[in-house]
Amino acid sequence: MLSDAIKAELRAIVGEKNCLDRQEALVAYSYDATPMQQALPDAVVMPASTAEVQKVVQVAARHQIPIVTRGAGSNLCGGTVPVGGGIVMSLHRMNQIVEIDEQNLTITVQPGVRTVDIHQAVEAKGLFYPPDPGSMVISTIGGNIALNSGGLRGLKYGTTKDYVLGLEAVLPNGEVIRTGGKLMKDVAGYDLTKLWVGSEGTLAIITEAILKLIPKPTTQRVMLAMYADMEQAARSVSDIIANRIIPGTLEFLDQGTIRVVEDFKQIGLPTDVAAILLIGQDGEAQIVDRDMERIAEICQKNQAVQIKVAKTDEEADEVMTARRSALAALSRMRPTTILEDATVPRAQIAPMVAAIQEITDRFGLNICTFGHAGDGNLHPTCMTDARDHEEIERVEQAFEEIFAAAIDLGGTITGEHGVGIVKAPYLEWKVGAAGMEVMKGIKRAFDPHNLLNPGKMFAKESRNRVVVNRA
Amino acid sequence: MLSDAIKAELRAIVGEKNCLDRQEALVAYSYDATPMQQALPDAVVMPASTAEVQKVVQVAARHQIPIVTRGAGSNLCGGTVPVGGGIVMSLHRMNQIVEIDEQNLTITVQPGVRTVDIHQAVEAKGLFYPPDPGSMVISTIGGNIALNSGGLRGLKYGTTKDYVLGLEAVLPNGEVIRTGGKLMKDVAGYDLTKLWVGSEGTLAIITEAILKLIPKPTTQRVMLAMYADMEQAARSVSDIIANRIIPGTLEFLDQGTIRVVEDFKQIGLPTDVAAILLIGQDGEAQIVDRDMERIAEICQKNQAVQIKVAKTDEEADEVMTARRSALAALSRMRPTTILEDATVPRAQIAPMVAAIQEITDRFGLNICTFGHAGDGNLHPTCMTDARDHEEIERVEQAFEEIFAAAIDLGGTITGEHGVGIVKAPYLEWKVGAAGMEVMKGIKRAFDPHNLLNPGKMFAKESRNRVVVNRA
Repeated sequence: MLSDAIKAELRAIVGEKNCLDRQEALVAYSYDATPMQQALPDAVVMPASTAEVQKVVQVAARHQIPIVTRGAGSNLCGGTVPVGGGIVMSLHRMNQIVEIDEQNLTITVQPGVRTVDIHQAVEAKGLFYPPDPGSMVISTIGGNIALNSGGLRGLKYGTTKDYVLGLEAVLPNGEVIRTGGKLMKDVAGYDLTKLWVGSEGTLAIITEAILKLIPKPTTQRVMLAMYADMEQAARSVSDIIANRIIPGTLEFLDQGTIRVVEDFKQIGLPTDVAAILLIGQDGEAQIVDRDMERIAEICQKNQAVQIKVAKTDEEADEVMTARRSALAALSRMRPTTILEDATVPRAQIAPMVAAIQEITDRFGLNICTFGHAGDGNLHPTCMTDARDHEEIERVEQAFEEIFAAAIDLGGTITGEHGVGIVKAPYLEWKVGAAGMEVMKGIKRAFDPHNLLNPGKMFAKESRNRVVVNRA
Repeated sequence: MLSDAIKAELRAIVGEKNCLDRQEALVAYSYDATPMQQALPDAVVMPASTAEVQKVVQVAARHQIPIVTRGAGSNLCGGTVPVGGGIVMSLHRMNQIVEIDEQNLTITVQPGVRTVDIHQAVEAKGLFYPPDPGSMVISTIGGNIALNSGGLRGLKYGTTKDYVLGLEAVLPNGEVIRTGGKLMKDVAGYDLTKLWVGSEGTLAIITEAILKLIPKPTTQRVMLAMYADMEQAARSVSDIIANRIIPGTLEFLDQGTIRVVEDFKQIGLPTDVAAILLIGQDGEAQIVDRDMERIAEICQKNQAVQIKVAKTDEEADEVMTARRSALAALSRMRPTTILEDATVPRAQIAPMVAAIQEITDRFGLNICTFGHAGDGNLHPTCMTDARDHEEIERVEQAFEEIFAAAIDLGGTITGEHGVGIVKAPYLEWKVGAAGMEVMKGIKRAFDPHNLLNPGKMFAKESRNRVVVNRA
């Protein structure tokens, strides 16, 4: 609990109406998009500037109050749930595009700008910001940076980290620091920029970012390839890459996902196939056309039962929207949807999908898998019910085995969602005891009093999810 | 000085002939490619495996002996000069390409592999490893990773950091740790991989790396554009980018550099022009041709006095070799050559070149400038004589002003050469006092006893170079 005196300090900084402590406000900021994770903050503050963020951090540092920074709260790892109480700091009011620099090909943004607004602003100028996380219509760039968000274009274009050139951040001691700049090359000291991208708000609070832009591809095309057999789809993925083609998008949906997406969107997906690949290419028209032909040949050689090339932009949009709606479609099935994020080297997709299927069957669960086949980033998604404790226990055991399978195949426990609360118990599986020690050392170096987003990334011990009944 | 007992321990690990302490060996490992920097180690060890590296580190940790890891020693920041004495560990025997994985598009290498050998090995398979530092025919990949080396292709393809997917490293406490993997997406914990790239051997010793490959561009073309005026050349650079063309190479040579390069290589460069742009594009033939035409138009519009497109691969090679020989050519002029690395946002190239010229004239020095115009990474290069203490003092003052000018223009003190010894006194200019504290905290977290490459990156206080007479 925060004392009235501390709340008065916070109100003096951000203004009366931007410091909330009514119960309904606290509840509204007690959860994010992650199922079964909830904790009440003691106050919610909504600063409008770096100076206000700095002052809030100074107050928090003085009184040793935890701060959990958040944007839209669309993350899927419990990354913004205030498990240690304290202050939730929402940066949604810092939502200005500061500058688009067409000479240096950069955009400077405040953390509360929505990802999709960046896309639209730069594309209007013929420029392109590739990272496109599934949540991009609601997610903010600050959250994307905190979690190093990926998306459908990761294979060809990389993820958020590849586009962050410089940051302004407030350190846990209240100092403001700037890293990088409008610079394509900068090796002055340790790379704080890349370290902070993906550090989940545990090291510093990002208050401004300079992002790299590239020229917008002039042409985009999309096709669907349907398969009676998962192995053939996986082999197509490998063969496309082995033929030295890097598609702009190379997505995968299994039969379960296809069925619910078709039920939701009705765009004519065949619900009797085992797998669909959604393959897109972008770039210059003649190259895109040539690549699409070669890709279609490769899919045919691998026994695709049907190949459907989107003929118009509208058709292409429809297909992409269908893929993007996979989570929403799956969420309609049962009360609780758990979207996971195991990632393997792309050559291991077929064994990974087989492992997920075997584990799903053995635990008697309903898990559908879709995701970014091109970069091995799969989203096994379990439709379940948080109120059924016996089932949830099986879900946890199944995901534990799925993470283990990913590690065994040379993969990782999270490709783009982050560690947060839900993957913390498994982080050591990937990075080892020595890796955990090193990471904890970094955390201590930045935040010795553990004030920034405590309880994330580093688990106390438990390897099981905490089940909170939200029914 | 190391005791005989410690040397016996080291010999037992790496074998008699791979542990040197004769005076001539110590001298051979007392310097790198950086002028005026020299210090004798106490011993040189040459391990052949990660296990041997680990054992050497354990010995060093037990006896609190500094370790300076090195590859070819081609760095230009004094990064491998053993200023604290102790052990120089050369990794040149760990020179195996472990695997080229054509399905996952990765190459796994030991640190002692030469950069050019990676290029040749992957290009033979139609694949491409873009980073091409000027020293690539002698530099090793371990050194490239330690310093986050750039090169001529940085503008379009990025630098070493953008291609490192995973690392094996030995920590200062002797533990071996693996990060990342053959994974395009991995957000499991803090990004140790990217933190170690560019950490100059101060945090961990890299013993293996997984690098990302991309398909090799099928076509490469090169042109030279000559200008009577530097401003016109700089405006051409800005206009090319503003026209949404990202060339594979976009290099700049000033008149002084042109003259010495022509004198050295005799390929017919006009020595009366103020500046030459060397502009290359790679990719698919039809796109490359179209881009080259558009680039030529832009250069013409900006009053290029002559444009010369290389007609054959041999002509293109000749032009690229001429550019790559700039440092060698300049080095012939006087006893000491100091190659610097100030970097600015690309839109600031013209003011930066003007500032360098003004400073050069004011201090009465001989400084030529060439570099990577496309990414604002300039190499002002001073031809001087280390024995002339009065002149060297002016050189130091001039470079100090050049770094200050770069910072004032939104740039940095080093784009691709690293901090090492020579930039350490200026690092705070770029990252600020708070940045220095944070970086020192990271160093302490990894290496509390300051055993890995001590005396680098963090200067005690001096802002002047230590002049060591090598004449």
